Amino acid sequence: MVISKNMEKLVAGSSTIRKLFEEGIQMAQEVGAENVYDFSLGNPASPVPHEIRDSIENILDNTDGNIVHGYMKNAGYDEVRKAVADSLNRKNGTSYSADDIIMTCGAAGAMNCVFRSLLNAEDEVITFAPFFGEYRSYVANYGGNLVVVPADTKTFQLNLDAIRPLINEKTRCVIINNPNNPSGVIYTEDTLKKLNDILTEAEKEIGHPIYVLADEPYRELVYGDQTVPYIPNIIRNSIFLYSFSKTLSLPGERIGYMAVSKDIDYYDEMISALVVANRCLGYINAPSLFQLVVAQCLDIPANLEFYDRNRKLLYNKLTSLGFEVVHPDGAFYMLIKSPTPEEDDFVAMGKKYHIILVPAKSFGCPGYVRLAYCVSHDMIERSLPAFEKLAAEYYNK
Amino acid sequence: MVISKNMEKLVAGSSTIRKLFEEGIQMAQEVGAENVYDFSLGNPASPVPHEIRDSIENILDNTDGNIVHGYMKNAGYDEVRKAVADSLNRKNGTSYSADDIIMTCGAAGAMNCVFRSLLNAEDEVITFAPFFGEYRSYVANYGGNLVVVPADTKTFQLNLDAIRPLINEKTRCVIINNPNNPSGVIYTEDTLKKLNDILTEAEKEIGHPIYVLADEPYRELVYGDQTVPYIPNIIRNSIFLYSFSKTLSLPGERIGYMAVSKDIDYYDEMISALVVANRCLGYINAPSLFQLVVAQCLDIPANLEFYDRNRKLLYNKLTSLGFEVVHPDGAFYMLIKSPTPEEDDFVAMGKKYHIILVPAKSFGCPGYVRLAYCVSHDMIERSLPAFEKLAAEYYNK
Repeated sequence: MVISKNMEKLVAGSSTIRKLFEEGIQMAQEVGAENVYDFSLGNPASPVPHEIRDSIENILDNTDGNIVHGYMKNAGYDEVRKAVADSLNRKNGTSYSADDIIMTCGAAGAMNCVFRSLLNAEDEVITFAPFFGEYRSYVANYGGNLVVVPADTKTFQLNLDAIRPLINEKTRCVIINNPNNPSGVIYTEDTLKKLNDILTEAEKEIGHPIYVLADEPYRELVYGDQTVPYIPNIIRNSIFLYSFSKTLSLPGERIGYMAVSKDIDYYDEMISALVVANRCLGYINAPSLFQLVVAQCLDIPANLEFYDRNRKLLYNKLTSLGFEVVHPDGAFYMLIKSPTPEEDDFVAMGKKYHIILVPAKSFGCPGYVRLAYCVSHDMIERSLPAFEKLAAEYYNK
Repeated sequence: MVISKNMEKLVAGSSTIRKLFEEGIQMAQEVGAENVYDFSLGNPASPVPHEIRDSIENILDNTDGNIVHGYMKNAGYDEVRKAVADSLNRKNGTSYSADDIIMTCGAAGAMNCVFRSLLNAEDEVITFAPFFGEYRSYVANYGGNLVVVPADTKTFQLNLDAIRPLINEKTRCVIINNPNNPSGVIYTEDTLKKLNDILTEAEKEIGHPIYVLADEPYRELVYGDQTVPYIPNIIRNSIFLYSFSKTLSLPGERIGYMAVSKDIDYYDEMISALVVANRCLGYINAPSLFQLVVAQCLDIPANLEFYDRNRKLLYNKLTSLGFEVVHPDGAFYMLIKSPTPEEDDFVAMGKKYHIILVPAKSFGCPGYVRLAYCVSHDMIERSLPAFEKLAAEYYNK
């Protein structure tokens, strides 16, 4: 085999979600798109806000093309970084300056920069199940290992009892995804404070920082009167990673940033390494036009109503049919407990009715499936009879 | 130190070019931008073609925003990949299909995907000096080592006599940058055929393919009646990497592609791995709007006249002043032989007259400096008296 060993494994275990997404396309060709209920992918269906186009026009009208489409510093345009810093400071009472912000190719690009900067071969990164399966690849890119704290399936909060024994000299980072993909749960301030206590103590023992990566692309997608604590205000050694993909329905544009507070250990070394990583991983810089666009759109709210209607309709329907569903307070996912011990069987049964769900073992949470409700309301309405038939396979017999 | 060992080295040796670029900004603040002659960076000053904006408007008018800015397959939009394949086939008589094209975050992103797919720790990648210094980082990202074939400073063609002893079981790839950055030289068909003979023989001996990466962002920038051979037509095991950065003056947008012929060894494994690499390195996909834009702009010619005027004026002036300059036939760089043995002294002397040049030791070619003439013609005209003073330091004494 010509492919590198590390890559072979990734290709073999290649994204279940993407495979299902492509199966959905195939199924649509066979039975008609209107008869397929694809809940597999986190591709936001909420319309792109009109301000995006307004902003594109505004920039193209008023800024020289060689500036709009040209190279800038690897960390991004100074004025964009300042706008992001100011916006974070307004919202969270922080005190970032432009220097603390690095514009990135989405949150995935930001996370790759962190791992490229920190990981030696065999170093470890901890995350809490359920977790976004791609974390495994991002860590593997640089020869590291992802260590998974098993899910607390009672509360779906951070399973704090289980983390301490997993920390050792090789531990470099802990990833927290809040609100969580795939559970839709928001980690509470109390939980995060307890995590901080555990990590602060562990850092003393192991003698180096454990950076918490606050991976928060769903930060603005919270329902009802819920709020999401700002992790860098609770955990000093944390780096905030953000993507505009979900809030502004721009996932294809690959635009996000990371915010690095001056309070973290080794700030100077970290910021230099992260900027070099952004360059040397071939991103060079976050896409230029969209850096300028998002800087003008920092205060545009997410289309919460769009997703909340979906959430309520599905949650109520599924629970009334007998399914056990983790209550989703944020993001646009819900976890359904598989009515059979092996969730692959449940996923297969879903396909019988053209419902596409993702087995949650790829999120480190076997026995559950993920449903992404970032789809059209219309599709959800059309899918309800199919869910009735699916429920009847388990609950009406 | 908290930064990974491999990264520490990269940060320490961080891009000379970028540092000089930032020094140039500093100098401009001190003596006025009009008095600084910054030839450090390959940031194209040729205006962005008006077709880019036309195409953006056209796409935003006619395509649903959730398609324009949404996720697509990790390899890119099918119709974009087909347009690229068709265009390559028309220009080079190849027979690519859409499946053979992966849209990437520039050529740098494409190269990172190849190395992520192929390199085990300590594997080797060969390139010919002079070479783009960032190759070293791209290889180091995955624990590999860049092996440099010394420059043939007589012809600046590939130094074929020197490559064979450098090939061994660890050799995975050879990078060819044609036209070359920093020399501006075009490698001839004859040279490339000879390289093919050497590699084909070596592959038999080592028992695995050596993939040639044809890194060709400057492919369309050639002057006079020069042509650039299409490497995949000469070397079977080659992958073509392209960026629209230089031709269309879009370096900030991070848009390019790789083309993988079905004739290469292990085609199926390679294409799967490359697509997974594109996802798992956090690119996910090439920026979506600009995929659609470049697909509409594949036949827009580079603004050759813009660069050719600069090239002629500078080449004639510099040689008439006594400098020894490698004749540039392509790209927008020229190599000047340092009049002193240590080119850093020459670079320092340049700064005295506010001329910013890059020491070519960072391109594996000590004793030379690189001048990027992708700047405004006006700046070049203003710089000529400064070059006269610089020449007088060496040649009129």
